Amino acid sequence: MPAAEINAYLTHHVPLVRAMNVRVSSFDARGVTLSAPLAPNVNDKGTAFGGALASILSLSGWALCYLLLEERSVEADLVIAESAIQYHKPVHERITAICPMPEVAAVEGFFNSLRDRGKASWVLNAEVKTGGETNVTFRGRYAAIRPGNILP
Amino acid sequence: MPAAEINAYLTHHVPLVRAMNVRVSSFDARGVTLSAPLAPNVNDKGTAFGGALASILSLSGWALCYLLLEERSVEADLVIAESAIQYHKPVHERITAICPMPEVAAVEGFFNSLRDRGKASWVLNAEVKTGGETNVTFRGRYAAIRPGNILP
Repeated sequence: MPAAEINAYLTHHVPLVRAMNVRVSSFDARGVTLSAPLAPNVNDKGTAFGGALASILSLSGWALCYLLLEERSVEADLVIAESAIQYHKPVHERITAICPMPEVAAVEGFFNSLRDRGKASWVLNAEVKTGGETNVTFRGRYAAIRPGNILP
Repeated sequence: MPAAEINAYLTHHVPLVRAMNVRVSSFDARGVTLSAPLAPNVNDKGTAFGGALASILSLSGWALCYLLLEERSVEADLVIAESAIQYHKPVHERITAICPMPEVAAVEGFFNSLRDRGKASWVLNAEVKTGGETNVTFRGRYAAIRPGNILP
């Protein structure tokens, strides 16, 4: 089960993932969902800390790439190249970040580039929503690099 | 000493600041510098986790605003409205984030708006540098709101 695997991997390798208690809760054709309790991620106003929101959203795109690579048994290094975040409304409860699966053509394009050029990059959108409202929106550019290749 | 005060405040109120072991190391007319050891902020590749970099950079702008408000004894709530980050090079050592002081005219404009309109917002730049090289660049828009006012 890939979500369990990635949780074990991240919890082991990334101390802040442990501190945030963030977990991939689902991965399917619709995309990936991560969640984390509010308490370890709170700021001085009792709402989610901007850095925690940036972290869980960055991780959501990273997790989507990681899980797609795993699914296709493609070995590649993953990095985030850039990101932009809009904080619309404070988050007062458990944090849930959703990174929707891109269109099939985009996924195929990403993997074709990775196969043909040894590297690929794409922009993923994600958001934090509570009760049907969007609290935070995120766009991140992620690059995947096959062993022996250099960054795009 | 304002840096000591803000460190005590953040360490007390923001669990992730404790987990990251991030501290304001200086604040003067040139701006604010924050730093954090690599170990608690590391990713699966042994370099700084993107979420930790986003957090320390977001905090650097927030700290600059907070310390300016303290210096002038102005009471206001501070929020980050949006941010953009470019990850140029991995960070292999202790993380240092610098948010330079804006021009005098920008600082005066910010405080004039806060006095006259009860709220103000501005864009701050910050970066993570190691050994003279820029690893990560950041732009964040911060808003300050005096008690009794609503968000800009």
